[in-house]
Amino acid sequence: MQSYKELSKEELLQKKIQLEEEYKKVMSENISLDMSRGKPGADQLDISMEMMDVLKSTDNLVCEQGVDCRNYGILDGIKEAKKLLADMSEVPVDNMIIFGNSSLNIMFDTVSRSVTHGVMGSKPWCKLDKVKFLCPVPGYDRHFSISEYFGIEMVNVPMTVTGPDMDMVEKLVKEDDSIKGIWCVPKYSNPQGITYSDETVRRFARLQPAAKDFRIYWDNAYGVHHLYEDDQDYLIEILEECKKAGNPDMVYKFCSTSKISFPGSGLAAIATSEPNLEEIRKHMTIQTIGHDKLNQLRHVLFYKDFDGMIDHMKKHAEILRPKFEMVLTILERELGGTGLGEWISPKGGYFISFDSMEGCAKEIIKKCKEAGVVMTPAGATYPYGKDPHDSNIRIAPTFPNLSELKKATELFALCVKLVGVNQLLENK
Amino acid sequence: MQSYKELSKEELLQKKIQLEEEYKKVMSENISLDMSRGKPGADQLDISMEMMDVLKSTDNLVCEQGVDCRNYGILDGIKEAKKLLADMSEVPVDNMIIFGNSSLNIMFDTVSRSVTHGVMGSKPWCKLDKVKFLCPVPGYDRHFSISEYFGIEMVNVPMTVTGPDMDMVEKLVKEDDSIKGIWCVPKYSNPQGITYSDETVRRFARLQPAAKDFRIYWDNAYGVHHLYEDDQDYLIEILEECKKAGNPDMVYKFCSTSKISFPGSGLAAIATSEPNLEEIRKHMTIQTIGHDKLNQLRHVLFYKDFDGMIDHMKKHAEILRPKFEMVLTILERELGGTGLGEWISPKGGYFISFDSMEGCAKEIIKKCKEAGVVMTPAGATYPYGKDPHDSNIRIAPTFPNLSELKKATELFALCVKLVGVNQLLENK
Repeated sequence: MQSYKELSKEELLQKKIQLEEEYKKVMSENISLDMSRGKPGADQLDISMEMMDVLKSTDNLVCEQGVDCRNYGILDGIKEAKKLLADMSEVPVDNMIIFGNSSLNIMFDTVSRSVTHGVMGSKPWCKLDKVKFLCPVPGYDRHFSISEYFGIEMVNVPMTVTGPDMDMVEKLVKEDDSIKGIWCVPKYSNPQGITYSDETVRRFARLQPAAKDFRIYWDNAYGVHHLYEDDQDYLIEILEECKKAGNPDMVYKFCSTSKISFPGSGLAAIATSEPNLEEIRKHMTIQTIGHDKLNQLRHVLFYKDFDGMIDHMKKHAEILRPKFEMVLTILERELGGTGLGEWISPKGGYFISFDSMEGCAKEIIKKCKEAGVVMTPAGATYPYGKDPHDSNIRIAPTFPNLSELKKATELFALCVKLVGVNQLLENK
Repeated sequence: MQSYKELSKEELLQKKIQLEEEYKKVMSENISLDMSRGKPGADQLDISMEMMDVLKSTDNLVCEQGVDCRNYGILDGIKEAKKLLADMSEVPVDNMIIFGNSSLNIMFDTVSRSVTHGVMGSKPWCKLDKVKFLCPVPGYDRHFSISEYFGIEMVNVPMTVTGPDMDMVEKLVKEDDSIKGIWCVPKYSNPQGITYSDETVRRFARLQPAAKDFRIYWDNAYGVHHLYEDDQDYLIEILEECKKAGNPDMVYKFCSTSKISFPGSGLAAIATSEPNLEEIRKHMTIQTIGHDKLNQLRHVLFYKDFDGMIDHMKKHAEILRPKFEMVLTILERELGGTGLGEWISPKGGYFISFDSMEGCAKEIIKKCKEAGVVMTPAGATYPYGKDPHDSNIRIAPTFPNLSELKKATELFALCVKLVGVNQLLENK
């Protein structure tokens, strides 16, 4: 397709009239769709329904350690659940703690604990004048919300196709001891679907932070969420790399089954070094009597082992693949070559990241909304909700069904063109 | 029985020989029993086993609000779960937030939030030189652990048969604005089984704390845990009383189903005023995507309504009644009139509180342990683990079966006598 940027004013005006007519037509359809949220569709939840039946009233619900899972006992997870999630996380079982239903909650509590109690003997962050976190952008809004809630200053680090700009990360953490953390979604990143390269991971592991209490917040939310069986990204394992690099305590690795079994009713876990685990357990001993062991047992009995989970993930992929491909096909068909936007084709994860021309994202999302399609708010992928280029838009193709998704993506592409043409006209 | 205090030295020496022989005999039996923990017995868990079957793989798991409970959505609990726990807590449904599996976790997070963010606009506690909590004693060790973990200074307030010494509570909170909270187990208190009188509750509601961010931490853990159908304690409802007294925001009321359904796999909740709830929701929005709605649904489907829960509690009572009665019978038979200890016969809850002669508790527990019976450590019922009288012992009769409990209580009574005789002899 011809680049819109090369069109004359007259050609653009003609496009504008045509696009506005199309938009008016869609408006009259009174559609109401949602492409804003990284939620599994109902068909994805259906494939886990047999998990409802694995615990029965007649069963003996004693775990491997001989503890009755119905009663108090076992603070950090039953052994078989640790095994399952350790295999999923590619870490030794002894490095795992199983929590409740939300890895976000673990991250929040980890930051909260650092604020009130410091990190392995460091000064509590609430006693410091300034605490900063590095935030690869675009990134996950809920990470940024946690930082903001605790008054942690966020520093943007641009993403590249191999992960965050590591020159910048290395320099900043080495120079500034108020930098205490970095938020990472290292595999099929939110929102771009980028997987950190081997070199990026190794450079992370070899960081030389000025702050002893600097930690990498490694949110491996999409570690097993491939779209293709024969074309997968591979991420090297950071705990082991950190150990090899002489930084064994530098990383907290988070995972959950929220998008494997049931969001809100899954298992979440942290993997980290023994000294970090010791500190976490000390905190947990005060905070709770332990998490839901019956739900842990339920997951173990349903998946049996990590192989069972891999088979299960193939079913998710079968449902998600056509959705991702439909969005990408429409984007290519409607916007390819127009110069109105760029996007990445991810091989897994939950999102497609779209970059419009500078200064267009808010207006595109507004236009979509007016015509009945809710997108993630512009700016959401940046700290403080402020995208300096007003360009990044997160597309979440998982929740709508295929026909809804087609309609929503076509409207989105139409809005990109309409807003793009208007901007180009303004500059003529 | 004759008071040991009236015995002559010779009589005491004779007793001592006889008691030491009995003790030696028990030692030779190599028993190994545990009366330390407020855990339900396996037979109590059995009565909830049908909860395993209420959600089926073929079910439509949509809640009243039309939300698919298997997916993300609903931060503060499904409506029907709120209703069930609101009825249990005797509060309006709109005053409830359902959390995860642990009310202790809610309390911890409530204190943690106050430390990092203050309370409804007050200065965060981490910015204050000193924060104090009042602790009715004897009380619940896990409350004290939370205070200690956050560096909150604890001030003992003696319990009376009608609840904490309210003259002292009123005076202290009025005079000292560093007092930010008080830990209460108002019904069938841990460990004494005391229920606060109407006047006590009303005096709580009418407190005039110097600190605007003072809150009553009302841990109603045993609100429906009666032992007798026809002889129950009654606690008036504090939220309503606080509202009437013009202190609507002064109380956080906690509850859980840990000792109703399954410890660790139940539901926990907070009930408080709308402004407090608003602050909690703001925090939750950052902390989590929401708690386990499937488990909420499971509880609602199993109990149906509060009447169903009351029926269920009768089954617990049938199991627990004989255990409590056995302990009380043995205490009365072995120690009644001896002057070696005092205890209260509770009408509900999970514990029997025993007060030995001053300076004997540690030694009694040591003697029990040497003979194979583990009791809650002496001092555990006091802040910092320090019982100034070395007198209070918490007996937890729920977990052992009846024959174990008989053996353990008889040994306990024997140790009370042995240690008592020794102490009396020392003072002769």
